[in-house]
Amino acid sequence: MKTRITARELFAIDLPILQSPMAGAQDAALTLAVSEAGGLGGLPCAMLSAEVLQKQLAWLTARTSKPYNLNFFCHTPPTVNEQKEVAWRASLAAYFREFNIDPLQIPPGPQRQPFNHEVADLVEPFQPPVVSFHFGLPEADLLDRVNGWGALVMASATTVEEACWLEANGADVIIAQGVEAGGHRGMFLDTDINTQVGTFALLPQIVRAVQLPVVAAGGIADGAGIAAALQLGAVAAQLGTAFLLCNESRISSLHQDALQQPTAQITALTNLFSGRPARGIVNRLMREQGPMSRRVPQFPLAGTAITALRKAAEQQGSSDFSPLWAGQNVTGCKKVAAAELLRELAQQLSGQQQ
Amino acid sequence: MKTRITARELFAIDLPILQSPMAGAQDAALTLAVSEAGGLGGLPCAMLSAEVLQKQLAWLTARTSKPYNLNFFCHTPPTVNEQKEVAWRASLAAYFREFNIDPLQIPPGPQRQPFNHEVADLVEPFQPPVVSFHFGLPEADLLDRVNGWGALVMASATTVEEACWLEANGADVIIAQGVEAGGHRGMFLDTDINTQVGTFALLPQIVRAVQLPVVAAGGIADGAGIAAALQLGAVAAQLGTAFLLCNESRISSLHQDALQQPTAQITALTNLFSGRPARGIVNRLMREQGPMSRRVPQFPLAGTAITALRKAAEQQGSSDFSPLWAGQNVTGCKKVAAAELLRELAQQLSGQQQ
Repeated sequence: MKTRITARELFAIDLPILQSPMAGAQDAALTLAVSEAGGLGGLPCAMLSAEVLQKQLAWLTARTSKPYNLNFFCHTPPTVNEQKEVAWRASLAAYFREFNIDPLQIPPGPQRQPFNHEVADLVEPFQPPVVSFHFGLPEADLLDRVNGWGALVMASATTVEEACWLEANGADVIIAQGVEAGGHRGMFLDTDINTQVGTFALLPQIVRAVQLPVVAAGGIADGAGIAAALQLGAVAAQLGTAFLLCNESRISSLHQDALQQPTAQITALTNLFSGRPARGIVNRLMREQGPMSRRVPQFPLAGTAITALRKAAEQQGSSDFSPLWAGQNVTGCKKVAAAELLRELAQQLSGQQQ
Repeated sequence: MKTRITARELFAIDLPILQSPMAGAQDAALTLAVSEAGGLGGLPCAMLSAEVLQKQLAWLTARTSKPYNLNFFCHTPPTVNEQKEVAWRASLAAYFREFNIDPLQIPPGPQRQPFNHEVADLVEPFQPPVVSFHFGLPEADLLDRVNGWGALVMASATTVEEACWLEANGADVIIAQGVEAGGHRGMFLDTDINTQVGTFALLPQIVRAVQLPVVAAGGIADGAGIAAALQLGAVAAQLGTAFLLCNESRISSLHQDALQQPTAQITALTNLFSGRPARGIVNRLMREQGPMSRRVPQFPLAGTAITALRKAAEQQGSSDFSPLWAGQNVTGCKKVAAAELLRELAQQLSGQQQ
C-alpha cells in the first residue's frame, strides 16, 4: 500500500476539504472565507474579464496569506458555425416568441476564456499556490509557466483514462470528479456521458491507477462523506454544492430557492446551457428539450441564445431557462457563513474518525 | 448518533458482505458458496419456475445451515397491450429481417413472477432467514406471511422517498441502491431515471432519513469500498458485479468476455431488455435504439421480442442483443471461487480498518 500524503502536507491546509471553484456562482469572498477557515478556497477564473480577475486576485491576496486555488478552463475556443447556430436558434424559436426576443439581435453570451499567456501574465505576479484546470491541461509552455511559479497543478479526471493522461501530462494532483458532482463535467478525452460514473466507482479506480494524490469530488456533503472519501484513498474531498447557500455565495435568489425545493433532488447532466455536459436541477428548458441535445453549438457558444432567454425569464421571476447547477446531494447546503460550514464539517469529520 | 447494529447481529454472518441476487446470472451454487464463506448469499427467485425454485431451495438448504437471502420481485404483472406490442416489434423490424425472424411467431419471453401466495406456499416449509424484495414490497397479507416465518425483510430503495416508504410499510432492512449498481433499478415510486443518484449521495441521505439498518449497494468492488460504505453509515455492503466472473456464476461466455473488455467501463441504464431501467454494458441494441426508449412495452413484456433477437445473435457468437448487466465498477471481477473472492475482500477490509 502506498504511504499516503496528507492534505496538510500537500496543500498546507488544516482540513482535508477543498471548495470547488464554481464559475458564475461565487467570487473571491467565498475563496477567502474557506481558506481562512482552514480549507482550500477556490476562485473560478474562467468567466472573469482581465480587469475583474486582476481585482479579485488583488483583493484576495491582500486579505489572506493562506493557500488558495485558482481555477481555469482549458478548452479549445470554437469557431462559430453559422449553420449550427441558426439551426439551434430555430429550434428555440417558440421560446423567443414567448419572450418577444429577436433571435437575430442577441448579444454575445457569457465569455469563457481558456487559460492563455495573457491570463498567465496577469496571474504571474500573484504566484498562486494552487492552480487547477478543468477540461484537461493547457499546452506545455503554459504549464511550464505555472510550474515555474511553484504552483501545485490540479486537474479533473472523470475516467481512469483521463486520470492516467493527466498524470502523464504534468498534473500534480488529480481531482476524481464522480458523476454526482454539480456543474460542468471535466471530461476531455470522450464526449459520451455513459463514461461518467459515480464517485464510489471512480475514486478507488483512479487511486489504484495513478501514483499522484487524488482529491474526491461528487456527492460529498458532510463529514461522513469526507471520511468515506479518505477511506477510499483520497487525500481530501472537494465540495461545491454544499457552499451554494453560504453567505458568501453569489447565486441568484431563484437559484437559492431552487436548491431548497424537494425538486432539487432531481438533477440531470445537460449540455443546453453551454454546449458541454453539466449537472443542474431539472427545469423547464431541460424537460422540454431533453437535457442532452445534439443540436447545441460547441462549448461555450450554446450559452449565447440561452442566456437571452434566461435573462428575460428571470426578469419575470422564473428559473425556467436558468442553469441551476447542483450536485446529486444538496443536503449539505446551509444558509450560514462558509467558515461556520467548515467548522461543522470538521466537527462531523472528527466524530467519524474517532 | 444512533448506536449501529452490526452485520453479525443483524444477519448472523461473519462478514459485512451481501451478495446481490442476480436473476438470470446465477443459481444456488453462488448463494451457497457466499453463505458458507461468511457472507450472505442471495438467491434470485423471480425468474424461476415453481419446480426449479423448489429444487434450488432443497439443494441449498441440504447443504448449509448458514443464513441466506431469497429475492423476489413485487411488480404488478401487466396486461398485454397489443397496440404497444405491435409498435414495439415494428420498431425492431430491421433486426428481425437481419436474423430471419418472423415477429409474429415469437414465443413468450422470460417469465418474471411477482411474489404471490403460490410462491409463498412453496417457500414456507424452508423458513428462509432473509427475504428481499425489488420494486417495492408485496401486499400486506403476503408480507405478514413472510414475517410469520421469522424472516428478516429487506427491500431496495433508490431514493430517500422510497426508503421512507419501505420503512413505513414493513421492511426490516433498507438496501440503498446507488445508480452505479448493475442490473435492474429497484425504483418503484417514480419512473424518472433522473431521480437515481450515486451511492455517495444516496447512502448518507437514507441513513439519516430512516431508523432501519441500511445496506449499501452500487459501485462497491473491494475492501476499501466496503469500509467506505460502513463509514457512510451502512451496516453492510452488497456486491453483485464482483461475483459475475466467479466459478459459481452462470453467465454466458459472451457476458464473461464483455466484462473483461475495456468497454465494460461504459454502461448505461436501459429499459430495452425488460421494460424497466437496468444497468448494463452498452452494446449495439442500446447504441442504436438509445438505451432508454419510450416505445417499450410494460415490464417484463419488452423482453419477449428482444429475447428472440438475443437467441439468434448469440447463436452467431454476438452479444449485440444480450443484456450485459454490469455495474459501473467491474474492477472487482475475478475468475476465482466465490469463497476466495470473499476471503480477499475480508482481508482488504481488515487492512482498511486497521
